[in-house]
Amino acid sequence: MPHPSAPTTLVITCGDPAGIGPEVVVAAWSRTAAHDHARLRVVAPADMLAATLTSTPGLPRLALETVTADDPRPSRAGTLSVIEPAFRPEPVPRGCISAAGGAAAIAALETAFRAVRAGHAQAIVTGPLNKEAIHAAGHDVPGHTEWLARACGLPDAAASMMLWLPARAGGTGGLGVVHATLHEALREALGHLSTASIGAAGQRLAGVLPALVGRPPRLAVAALNPHGGEGGLFGDEEARIVAPAVRALAATGLDVVGPLPADTLFLQASQGRFDGVVALYHDQGHIPVKLLGMHRAVNITLGLPLVRTSVAHGTAFDIVGTGTADPSSMLAAIDVACRLAAASPPAASFMDAGPRGF
Amino acid sequence: MPHPSAPTTLVITCGDPAGIGPEVVVAAWSRTAAHDHARLRVVAPADMLAATLTSTPGLPRLALETVTADDPRPSRAGTLSVIEPAFRPEPVPRGCISAAGGAAAIAALETAFRAVRAGHAQAIVTGPLNKEAIHAAGHDVPGHTEWLARACGLPDAAASMMLWLPARAGGTGGLGVVHATLHEALREALGHLSTASIGAAGQRLAGVLPALVGRPPRLAVAALNPHGGEGGLFGDEEARIVAPAVRALAATGLDVVGPLPADTLFLQASQGRFDGVVALYHDQGHIPVKLLGMHRAVNITLGLPLVRTSVAHGTAFDIVGTGTADPSSMLAAIDVACRLAAASPPAASFMDAGPRGF
Repeated sequence: MPHPSAPTTLVITCGDPAGIGPEVVVAAWSRTAAHDHARLRVVAPADMLAATLTSTPGLPRLALETVTADDPRPSRAGTLSVIEPAFRPEPVPRGCISAAGGAAAIAALETAFRAVRAGHAQAIVTGPLNKEAIHAAGHDVPGHTEWLARACGLPDAAASMMLWLPARAGGTGGLGVVHATLHEALREALGHLSTASIGAAGQRLAGVLPALVGRPPRLAVAALNPHGGEGGLFGDEEARIVAPAVRALAATGLDVVGPLPADTLFLQASQGRFDGVVALYHDQGHIPVKLLGMHRAVNITLGLPLVRTSVAHGTAFDIVGTGTADPSSMLAAIDVACRLAAASPPAASFMDAGPRGF
Repeated sequence: MPHPSAPTTLVITCGDPAGIGPEVVVAAWSRTAAHDHARLRVVAPADMLAATLTSTPGLPRLALETVTADDPRPSRAGTLSVIEPAFRPEPVPRGCISAAGGAAAIAALETAFRAVRAGHAQAIVTGPLNKEAIHAAGHDVPGHTEWLARACGLPDAAASMMLWLPARAGGTGGLGVVHATLHEALREALGHLSTASIGAAGQRLAGVLPALVGRPPRLAVAALNPHGGEGGLFGDEEARIVAPAVRALAATGLDVVGPLPADTLFLQASQGRFDGVVALYHDQGHIPVKLLGMHRAVNITLGLPLVRTSVAHGTAFDIVGTGTADPSSMLAAIDVACRLAAASPPAASFMDAGPRGF
């Protein structure tokens, strides 16, 4: 029974235990204010977390308790509340790619997902994964996101990602970036760019941002070509593809401008002019977000009937165990998952997703 | 006769007088330390500068003196040393596009160029231009750079641009960005990208950076595709086009790495890991440079037998006369021109350029 004052349970995985995931989870656990608003649970082998606590310099001295997914007690900053994964993989060597690390990551994700499917949790927060490790473990899936899409009975393409850059400490709001094309060659991305894909990206932005910025979001759509095409001199995609998508978005009542020259747009966005930006290809969105503060960025999964956030960084095998891993992104991922879970109306929750659910 | 202690003369133009050019020139004149190392001259109608001084809030109270291009006296922070343009255009309305503004910009550039050609000056610094204004004035040329290339008897394409972002106040060095493709549709840029164009961009970087960073520069070449192509999964340009250019540059003894994923690369560059980056297309270089500090960036013209720098910002018609124009870019442009002129060996100077000169 959810406690009235803490209606949300977040299940957190460490991603690949060989990476910095366990360290940033433990560090974030002791610092986050989310315990006041939600129950937090870490899905991981308790002995692995205990080993992380003793072997990593600088981590807080936390107690450990093992709980079941339906345990109603709140979480506390001083004690890790741990759900053991249903499947227990081999011991995982730290700091390198291994099949055991990939298997452990997917095992934790599966247990987290079951907790959500059973209604015991409302949101999943994941640590960083290594794609080669999950392939080595025999999982033929690109990553957490596609695994979750398939578990929801959806095609991989149903799930997409928003990069969310929270405002610096003390600020409010932040900047969300959704890509109209993403993991494909730039040449192919140009061919796949369409008024429909840009419009869909804008709608996804518009759907999630109100819960993060607390008001109707101010959106912008990037141009593709230098100077936004310079009136057709440097390409016609702005007039032919991008502008019709912006008009269609505006026609639905959204506050949206574009196409804007991408270099100017991100400068303005960094100054707080926009809450969300549709980037047309991977690097157009990732170059500015990384420069503006990748260490505190969050991936938000859109398009699935559950709330899921993830750190935006990788496993960082090279610094595992050194105590230098920065938990900012994990802290932000927990905070954002909390807010999105609290904002999700019952009709949009996982259990009520109807034909898309189970 | 150049004074031994001030062997360099810089001629500065205001660009389009309708824009913020005159304001930033006057503000920079009173603040720059370059008077200690070079003679500074402004090429502009003295009465236009006098009007700028009296009508713009916040500008320093400077005296004005008119000099000839061969005047050997040093310049002083308190007195503008003005060379009257050979051609005197119509009065220029402020804050808007006009044929008179375009004509004035080109008239000043022509006088500045003549001073360099005659050996009276060693470098040109230009203020911001409006392309429509110079077209309205009947000049069929895209901008200052191409005008200078043609004046040197060279094709437009001989001149290229380096964006130079000086380190923040107190720091040393900075970041130079040269583009392998620039003002063309992204789709066409992909078609024009070649091992030769990337190699040439790297050589231009390597040629100019030692004078700015004081040692052999550390260079990087950006990848084209997401994650640098992810081992061929997201495109083959990295292996087919970019990597051979990096190898060719390294084979000439340069310290160069790449292709690197562009988002990671610019993050590392912003942390001081590189002195120069070859960007493969316009926005790949401009998005990060604008975010990292466009107000203090400088354009350096490469490929011409003279030293020329320019502000990296535009005419900013909307803030003309308000006293809010930031002279940082003009200050940096003067500083960089000084250093490049001082570093140019006689054999590379304008007058010794042989068949490319006059």
